[in-house]
Amino acid sequence: MIATLELEKLVRQITDDVVAILEKTYHPMYSSDGGNEHLHSEHADMLLQLGASRIGARPGIKNMPGNLAPLIDHTLLKPDALPDQVEALCKEALQYGFASVCINSCYVKYAYSLLKSSRVKVCTVVGFPLGASITGAKVYEAQLAEADGAEEIDMVLPIGALKSKGYEYVQNDIASVVKNVSPRTIVKVILETALLTDEEKIMACELAKKAGAHFVKTSTGFVPGGATPGDIALMRQVVGPNMGVKASGGIRDRKAAELMVKAGATRIGASASVKIVTEDENAKSTPGDAGKY
Amino acid sequence: MIATLELEKLVRQITDDVVAILEKTYHPMYSSDGGNEHLHSEHADMLLQLGASRIGARPGIKNMPGNLAPLIDHTLLKPDALPDQVEALCKEALQYGFASVCINSCYVKYAYSLLKSSRVKVCTVVGFPLGASITGAKVYEAQLAEADGAEEIDMVLPIGALKSKGYEYVQNDIASVVKNVSPRTIVKVILETALLTDEEKIMACELAKKAGAHFVKTSTGFVPGGATPGDIALMRQVVGPNMGVKASGGIRDRKAAELMVKAGATRIGASASVKIVTEDENAKSTPGDAGKY
Repeated sequence: MIATLELEKLVRQITDDVVAILEKTYHPMYSSDGGNEHLHSEHADMLLQLGASRIGARPGIKNMPGNLAPLIDHTLLKPDALPDQVEALCKEALQYGFASVCINSCYVKYAYSLLKSSRVKVCTVVGFPLGASITGAKVYEAQLAEADGAEEIDMVLPIGALKSKGYEYVQNDIASVVKNVSPRTIVKVILETALLTDEEKIMACELAKKAGAHFVKTSTGFVPGGATPGDIALMRQVVGPNMGVKASGGIRDRKAAELMVKAGATRIGASASVKIVTEDENAKSTPGDAGKY
Repeated sequence: MIATLELEKLVRQITDDVVAILEKTYHPMYSSDGGNEHLHSEHADMLLQLGASRIGARPGIKNMPGNLAPLIDHTLLKPDALPDQVEALCKEALQYGFASVCINSCYVKYAYSLLKSSRVKVCTVVGFPLGASITGAKVYEAQLAEADGAEEIDMVLPIGALKSKGYEYVQNDIASVVKNVSPRTIVKVILETALLTDEEKIMACELAKKAGAHFVKTSTGFVPGGATPGDIALMRQVVGPNMGVKASGGIRDRKAAELMVKAGATRIGASASVKIVTEDENAKSTPGDAGKY
């Protein structure tokens, strides 16, 4: 149970956070049509998104999952993905109101052609899934994707550089992408947490934040071991309230998604998105057979 | 047993092939210093390489593996590869005389600094390992890698496009890389055979050949199922004698490497390269514990 006063305080705090975020970081990105006429509905979305995660993150408060769909990047990244599957992905995103479709860059133009009149964004990946491309190649891939219609870029940081304490290289790698795309384009930095120590996860979050990225994200889905609530909580702790945290890798049902939101995630990457938003709220969490990408 | 006349015929045929290859395809690529002073030794290498594969491929002729080292791309592509590991890889390549080191593009400049005064080439990967990057991103990554010192580019073809019969797209994707790097730069096209039907493997080989690539290659090493002798034989059959065929993925010992050469491979991609060239010729082929990349 929670006292009314405490709840009001919480709502006020969330509202303050939203205003701060809209003013500081998110605002230019969310007015993708260049005007402010949709800002009110974007405010509402942001409140929903932040509210879900922030309230969920408070112990003792009953989870308010509401609709998870606006938090989900509906994802298809396997190497043999077909155009028909990308089309189906886009249709599902439209039907369920997912935040975006997350696809490989060769499909951005096609997905954009299917989604441009909607509020579903096109998200793509860069330097993916190894993170070991030359920085300039990541930047150019991001720019090409943006030109094709992508509004969100999930880049993999250079893992070897991080592990060998080449922090300036890592920060420059991320900052180069951030600075060379539109300020409206959301850049998410994939840490590949399963390969990192906790110290490396913390450092990666700090470097991503310093480099001006908008989100930190756990996993590519191509390495055994995906998102864990512990990693999400750690990442949220390090980046603070004003950056996004995306949980991805192995999230195959509603309970798993809700757990990530409770731990501090503001975005979920999943291929089992339809299952996540349609299955019974009380369904048991089971190992899903959904694709890992 | 084989008659002397038949053997002579075979040797003559191989010699003709070598001359044809040197005149047509390989010649400009192998004179990387711009002069011809090394051409004789390169001839010898080529004869060794072709000979090993072509003779090995004839039933009834005892295998002549000789030294496998000049056929091997010594490979380290895992996402968390460290600079020290790349350095060790380069030292091994120098020590054993491997054809190249094959590394992610962020390490090309460093590897080149260690190998530039040697005959060991720097090979890198592009659009790797999914093959699903925008074509322009593959081209630019190849150009940046070339500028950093790479002389061989292993690119992954767009698998979804191949599977959905977007053949013009696939051919253009490959040709764009081939045409936009130096004619001396070797381009290998990774098919990711484990994901393809035999018909798709055949079509991929034909498209790679039409697009002007120099090699077809089986696998990235990031998908379960690597090179098989059957796939190598099929690829050799389709591309004919004048293109390279690279076997990669799961080749962990000498017997496996020799089997690939017998089946028609002219290059081997492996991380267990030192084991391959140093283990006893009569050692039993066993599942290695070498890294899969």
